[in-house]
Amino acid sequence: MARALLPARVLTEPVLIRGTGLLGTSIGLGLRAAGAEVWLADPSPSAQAVAVDIGAGDPFPAVDDGGSVAPDTPQPGTVVVASPPDVTGQVVVDSLRRFPDAVVLDVASVKGAIAAEVQTAVGNGALTAAEAARYVGTHPMAGSERSGPVAARGQLFTAAPWVVCATEETDPAAVAAAEEIARNLGATVHRMSAEDHDASVALISHLPQIAASLVSSRLQETPAASLALAGNGLRDTTRIAASDPQLWVQILAANAPEILEILYGVRDDLDRLINTMEDPSAPGARLDIAQLIAEGNAGHARIPGKHGGPPQAFAVVTVIVDDTPGQISAVLQDVGVAGVNVEDLRMDHSAGYQVGMLEISVLPGRRQELTDALTARGWKVV
Amino acid sequence: MARALLPARVLTEPVLIRGTGLLGTSIGLGLRAAGAEVWLADPSPSAQAVAVDIGAGDPFPAVDDGGSVAPDTPQPGTVVVASPPDVTGQVVVDSLRRFPDAVVLDVASVKGAIAAEVQTAVGNGALTAAEAARYVGTHPMAGSERSGPVAARGQLFTAAPWVVCATEETDPAAVAAAEEIARNLGATVHRMSAEDHDASVALISHLPQIAASLVSSRLQETPAASLALAGNGLRDTTRIAASDPQLWVQILAANAPEILEILYGVRDDLDRLINTMEDPSAPGARLDIAQLIAEGNAGHARIPGKHGGPPQAFAVVTVIVDDTPGQISAVLQDVGVAGVNVEDLRMDHSAGYQVGMLEISVLPGRRQELTDALTARGWKVV
Repeated sequence: MARALLPARVLTEPVLIRGTGLLGTSIGLGLRAAGAEVWLADPSPSAQAVAVDIGAGDPFPAVDDGGSVAPDTPQPGTVVVASPPDVTGQVVVDSLRRFPDAVVLDVASVKGAIAAEVQTAVGNGALTAAEAARYVGTHPMAGSERSGPVAARGQLFTAAPWVVCATEETDPAAVAAAEEIARNLGATVHRMSAEDHDASVALISHLPQIAASLVSSRLQETPAASLALAGNGLRDTTRIAASDPQLWVQILAANAPEILEILYGVRDDLDRLINTMEDPSAPGARLDIAQLIAEGNAGHARIPGKHGGPPQAFAVVTVIVDDTPGQISAVLQDVGVAGVNVEDLRMDHSAGYQVGMLEISVLPGRRQELTDALTARGWKVV
Repeated sequence: MARALLPARVLTEPVLIRGTGLLGTSIGLGLRAAGAEVWLADPSPSAQAVAVDIGAGDPFPAVDDGGSVAPDTPQPGTVVVASPPDVTGQVVVDSLRRFPDAVVLDVASVKGAIAAEVQTAVGNGALTAAEAARYVGTHPMAGSERSGPVAARGQLFTAAPWVVCATEETDPAAVAAAEEIARNLGATVHRMSAEDHDASVALISHLPQIAASLVSSRLQETPAASLALAGNGLRDTTRIAASDPQLWVQILAANAPEILEILYGVRDDLDRLINTMEDPSAPGARLDIAQLIAEGNAGHARIPGKHGGPPQAFAVVTVIVDDTPGQISAVLQDVGVAGVNVEDLRMDHSAGYQVGMLEISVLPGRRQELTDALTARGWKVV
């Protein structure tokens, strides 16, 4: 668990985290593990108490909900706003006013709307331009399925992308603080404008969520006998449909214009498919259907592979394992003995059987070697 | 690899497999491993030769493409039609006429259209009702992502559902043959009408395919910097978008009426969402969005869990592993030592890092114990 200490330049003063949900609490845990002093504040005393109890930081000694800055308020060097998306902009503005020397960053998943709220505050005189320059918007792309402080973990951000959206007006100290927090939590920094960020997440995060919800919604009345036939195709396509409605209302509403552009395209494709399917023997109908699937092939092939490298087709070696402790580890121990690296791994379960299929992805050139090695050691390789 | 021999009642005579793609070749491999005599026939001499070469069976000695039955044609006891969906009905009818004593089953993924073709043949006198009674439609639900005889494997059907669609007219011998083949290949038999089957697969297989293709299609023009942010949400939702357009044209066209009913519902939901998102601050708009996500929650919760049991929330223990051979097996060996069963397993990769997160699903009551055991052995549990 050895970590580099955070550079003194950024965190000689305490970090105040406002909002102790999954993200705020996880950031607190991670920063404390890195040696930082962390203060926690949440409008919900119980959420704050849980976060304190699990070691994410100390309670902030002087939250003043009136919004004015009490003269004896302790001053953090950095404020991380991890409030619900709907109130993030307001808490950012409040933090910039309340803590005149602090860098303020937020971690909400839509960035343009919050930057606009900060600019509105400048426009109406609530903030000076110099105050606004201490703000930088960020988005750590981790942890969307579970929620609340109980699910928090300091290494939530390990190997996750952390987008930082600086503008020409942003104080370089704010950018440096954000990037150093991100790096110290193990994330990879991606610099991007708020506009590019919001367009990106509309496509790679919000559209998949909507699609998973639309598909899952159709299952509400399905007979159990039909659902018993479900395989990994349905499971994978709908996994994220289990997400929190209250959180997603805020995300989708905040990024509505970007999402709408994409949904118009989806609706056009869907209308075209429906028209075609209404008369599948009409001239050109089959070409239309094949075109939709082929366009899906083309888009899917652009998703980067492991570690951000180019998409790579791994070879899959499938091994049958019993549902007893130690079986999977025994297989993988033999994979290790064979000296073959596991590039990816998944279990495939089906209804009615007490066995599973362990799908081991390896570099294509190693497939035969691994198959032979596992077969020689008595495994059922299929 | 010990297997029960197939009952003599069903397979004292050879099994003819017509069509040596992924399914036909895999069935041949599996039946041969079970001790059956298998003949293979494919209109493509090269596809047939590959299937023969990899041991799926012997070339059928007397394919007569004129459709008439040569007097010296050898007679199989069972014919498995594994042709492309578009020609399956025609090959079924041909097989019923050509082999007057054989049971004929098919393995295409849409069942109503093929049953209708058989009935049409009865209606126009091409088949007698007695001939048609020797046919039974089946659907082994496995193997949709890869294709061709090279991808075939005898255990493709292990633990997969295999739907058998008998009617009141179906000869019990045909049903028995189909079910015994399915069971001998390790599959679980599900009996269902063709109508129920087609409605089921429209929802659990065809809709996810369409959704994955619609989402992936939107990625065709996305900047690489956006795609670099992609996580498992996008990857899971789009995985099956890599499927074969030519195969899926046939599947979707054959099941068009059932799929259309579902797509109308999806379009209604999508239209409602688009209308709401066009004015997300209108009264009731947020409730509408939350409703869509909540309906997705409700549908998703109905998907059965492992081994067809009720949906179960496993606890997840996440361990950080380096990208070097043996790491994953070492973790799982320690899981085995701790005596905790792995219910599910997945790797989580992100762009830019040479580490992965191994997510180990266990029964909730075992989570703390496993976390403690792995931590004590030096693993980074997050």
